[in-house]
Parts: sequence; structure tokens; C-alpha cells
Amino acid sequence: MDHLIEKTISSKKLFSGRVIDLCVEEVELPNGKTSTREVVKHPGAVAVIALTQDHKLVMVKQYRKAMDRILVEIPAGKLEKGEQPIVTAKRELEEETGYTCKELKHVISFYTSPGFADELVHLYITDSLSVMQNKAALDEDEFVEVIEVSVDEALTMIQTNEIYDAKTAYAVQYLQLKSSLGE
Amino acid sequence: MDHLIEKTISSKKLFSGRVIDLCVEEVELPNGKTSTREVVKHPGAVAVIALTQDHKLVMVKQYRKAMDRILVEIPAGKLEKGEQPIVTAKRELEEETGYTCKELKHVISFYTSPGFADELVHLYITDSLSVMQNKAALDEDEFVEVIEVSVDEALTMIQTNEIYDAKTAYAVQYLQLKSSLGE
Repeated sequence: MDHLIEKTISSKKLFSGRVIDLCVEEVELPNGKTSTREVVKHPGAVAVIALTQDHKLVMVKQYRKAMDRILVEIPAGKLEKGEQPIVTAKRELEEETGYTCKELKHVISFYTSPGFADELVHLYITDSLSVMQNKAALDEDEFVEVIEVSVDEALTMIQTNEIYDAKTAYAVQYLQLKSSLGE
Repeated sequence: MDHLIEKTISSKKLFSGRVIDLCVEEVELPNGKTSTREVVKHPGAVAVIALTQDHKLVMVKQYRKAMDRILVEIPAGKLEKGEQPIVTAKRELEEETGYTCKELKHVISFYTSPGFADELVHLYITDSLSVMQNKAALDEDEFVEVIEVSVDEALTMIQTNEIYDAKTAYAVQYLQLKSSLGE
């Protein structure tokens, strides 16, 4: 596979932020020519398919600055330094929804935007939810509204672009597939 | 929903690149406090579920600088300025795989990383492939290897992290779902 690999000639960090860093890297291409690559560094994230006892999917409405609009997404958040993804997943579920859970099962992990960013999302599922007595605090700059919808309702929300997010679309399709397989 | 919306106080473009721009925006939160948002601006992208006559999924192996590794992905690429997504989809299919197609059907569009980027991916499907007489040229800094695999093989590649990309995982699950529904 060496005929595909690019060698780094130099790397320059142009920005170091609260969530992301930006690097521009000069690379040697497989044919010996050079090019530049713009790379966003991200700490990684988790997302949770949280199912209530009546088989509703717990989601959060959240304003997203990048699109200047409100999206409906499954609970999610970024990894803190040194935090195990499964720990982040339980914490984000608690902070965003007010539910806690007994168990979380890993579903899949995937890069979200491999063309320009290294963000890796770890997706978990749980159906062992219980309402927390004392709701965990959100991050101080985070405002969300919790909703619970059936898979059919979620499919309608994909049609109307209320659900407009890759990990959430994956999650809804995952539940459709489970249902069609009789699981 | 106004209780979720953030108002932009100021926006500063820190980087303008070949693929992405980076802005840092100061916002007024719903509670009147202020915060900053790091926003990556991306032109948007397309991806194609391309199925051969023997029901194999056409994919490309490509080195991705952000992760410093080779990933297997469905054919994809970013929108050129003013280009309709369906036109980009056909162009990227031709450039990356050497196949062209008669028809493309829209499957879904989703934001890949709404927490920090506005990249919107438009996913299409086609099973009307034919080999091009004269293969279209790749971008001059693009090197890919084409493979064709069954859905079962793709599922194994997800287990082994060769397929490690949200849009491709969505595509494989989409085909699983179609198959389980007998479509």
C-alpha cells in the first residue's frame, strides 16, 4: 500500500482552540510531487443511542453555530483528555438528558470527516435507562432540549431535515435494521 | 425555540485554505452570557453507493493525512463552487473509479460534524454502472485504489477498522437494511 502513502515534510500548527486545532502540513505525494493538507485535530467524541422502556429514542435539540440552526441529535459530546469513551458516553447521557444507565454497549466507531479532520466518534447503545434524582449539570455554554420519539417519528424528521446529522441518521437506520431483523 | 439560539456578536476568519476556512465567533448564549465557537467552513461534499451488476460495492482505498492511515471509503469528493451535488457525484464516481452511471438517486444528506464544521454530505446510490472507455483524471494530488466487495465483506472490514468512516458505514448499513427488507 506504500503507493498510496504521503510523507510529511513539515507541519505547522496555525490555531489551537478550545475544541479543535488546525495544522497545515506539507506532504510528499506517492509520485514524488508535493502538496499541502489542511488538518483539523479533534479530541474525539461519543454518541449514545438511548432507548426508553417504551422504545422511544432520546434525542436533544441543540443550536449549532456552524450551521446557524437547531439540529436534533442523539446525545453526544467530546472526549475529555484521558477519558475512556464509555465513561464520556455515560457522562454526556447524564448531562444532556437527565437519564443515567446501567449498561452501554459499543456499536461502532467511525471518523466523521476523514478528508479534513481526525474526529473519531464512538457510538454506544443502551436500553437500561433510569431518571436521575439530581440531574447532572450541562457545560456552562450548552443549552439543549430533550425529546423522545419513535423510530417512525425519527424517520419523518430525517425527511424534514430536523435530523440532519450523520451519527443520528446512522443511529436511526441501526434501529430500523434491528427492527427489520426482528431483534 | 428561541431559548436555544446563540446570537453572533463578532466573527473572525483566522484561516482561508484550499479546502476549509476557519472562523472563531463570539456569541451571546441564551442566558445572556458570552462564549466563543470555533467553526470550520467547508464547501460540502458528495458520496456514492455504487453497485456493480454482481451486487458488489465499489470503494476506494485512500491515504488520509488527518489520521495518517489508509481508509476504505465509498467514492466521495467535495463540491466545486456552484456545482450541483448530483453533478459532483457523477464526476467523483468517474474520476475515482473509472465507472460512469446512467442514473443517481438521492439517499440522504447529513452534516458530518455539526459540533465544529458545516460540512454537508449528499449521499447518492446507483446500480447503472458501466466502465468508461477513457478513465477520467483524478485530481493531481489524489491517489486511490479501487476495490469491489460484497456487503458481507464490507461488514468484516468494519470489524477490522479498514472501513472506519461514517458515510461508508452508513452506506453499508443502508445496503444491509435494503437486503433485510427484501429490496
